[in-house]
Amino acid sequence: MTSAVQTHDNDNVVWHAHQIDKAFRSQQKKQQPCVLWFTGLSGAGKSTVAGALETRLAELGFHTYLLDGDNIRHGLCKDLGFSTEDRRENIRRIGEVAKLMADAGLIVLSAFISPHRQERQLVRDMLPSGEFLEVFVDTPLEECEKRDPKGLYKKARAGQIKHFTGIDSEYEKPEAPEIHLQAGDYTVSELVDQCVAQLKHNQIIR
Amino acid sequence: MTSAVQTHDNDNVVWHAHQIDKAFRSQQKKQQPCVLWFTGLSGAGKSTVAGALETRLAELGFHTYLLDGDNIRHGLCKDLGFSTEDRRENIRRIGEVAKLMADAGLIVLSAFISPHRQERQLVRDMLPSGEFLEVFVDTPLEECEKRDPKGLYKKARAGQIKHFTGIDSEYEKPEAPEIHLQAGDYTVSELVDQCVAQLKHNQIIR
Repeated sequence: MTSAVQTHDNDNVVWHAHQIDKAFRSQQKKQQPCVLWFTGLSGAGKSTVAGALETRLAELGFHTYLLDGDNIRHGLCKDLGFSTEDRRENIRRIGEVAKLMADAGLIVLSAFISPHRQERQLVRDMLPSGEFLEVFVDTPLEECEKRDPKGLYKKARAGQIKHFTGIDSEYEKPEAPEIHLQAGDYTVSELVDQCVAQLKHNQIIR
Repeated sequence: MTSAVQTHDNDNVVWHAHQIDKAFRSQQKKQQPCVLWFTGLSGAGKSTVAGALETRLAELGFHTYLLDGDNIRHGLCKDLGFSTEDRRENIRRIGEVAKLMADAGLIVLSAFISPHRQERQLVRDMLPSGEFLEVFVDTPLEECEKRDPKGLYKKARAGQIKHFTGIDSEYEKPEAPEIHLQAGDYTVSELVDQCVAQLKHNQIIR
């Protein structure tokens, strides 16, 4: 915050030495900012687990924000379609917003299929080391298809949706996710426990 | 946060009734989220005043974030140039990010020339009534040109920069800004006092 420093000499005001930067905002919120990047198949439970984790963190007093299709696709990315190029730009913008929000001191959660390693790497590379945590919501395709909460798998199988991840478009599994949730084998609150334990281990929260 | 509610029946866990929404985050941070949209000529003092206001608010314990050219142009909007269309898209994206950050419970400050009424109205229309505060940093052109901190006016007068706001491109003054700073007549800390007084009047902070 050099601007405040610049005004020091002109104003006859005793300015505190506060630098209103990421470190200040992090300290203010008593947490290490980071981006928890949930990835997994449609129906894997990304939004459900991310939402439940956000609730848990908020109840513990932490400052969070959840980016998902609901608040991104109709706003920041409403000009984008579903071409390969537009999907990539979609993820890039989400990554940039997540980065700004981490800079604001928040624990950011995002819940997007983000099937390609390259695009997840793109976001990882935007952030300082240790601030990008890939959360692989690893639910077997059969289970996702059985749940089919939005009826999308049915449509994809019927050929009504093309390039559907897991059906006729590849999901590239994370090779070394910071958090690997075997989401078919645990309850949501158990999965949240696992995330919280890892966040404590990584000293994101205490 | 309906996802948390949905897990209620499956988990045998007593979930609190917390809705992790804007109202929760606002209450958690003890402030009314809003967007303080600084507008004015190049060299008017937008970044300086916005930065000094952010420092003051942070020292008072409020949770803020400042969007400016430094953190936007090289990231979220790095694919955009300076055509009329790209400038408009630039402001739209900044508006969408400011909206998301206000949804996260923050007091968002932004410092961009944003010379056109239409683009400022575009952002105003994205936000609920009362959450967009236009801050007109009203410094006379002569004073801005005298300061010329980046040497841009000199270049514009020499014809080396085209479509420079105030020289050969119009700045459309706000007609009814929520905060009107006669920036040439006061010190930075006095201008910050004026902003803080207005924020209290509008019950953004207490």
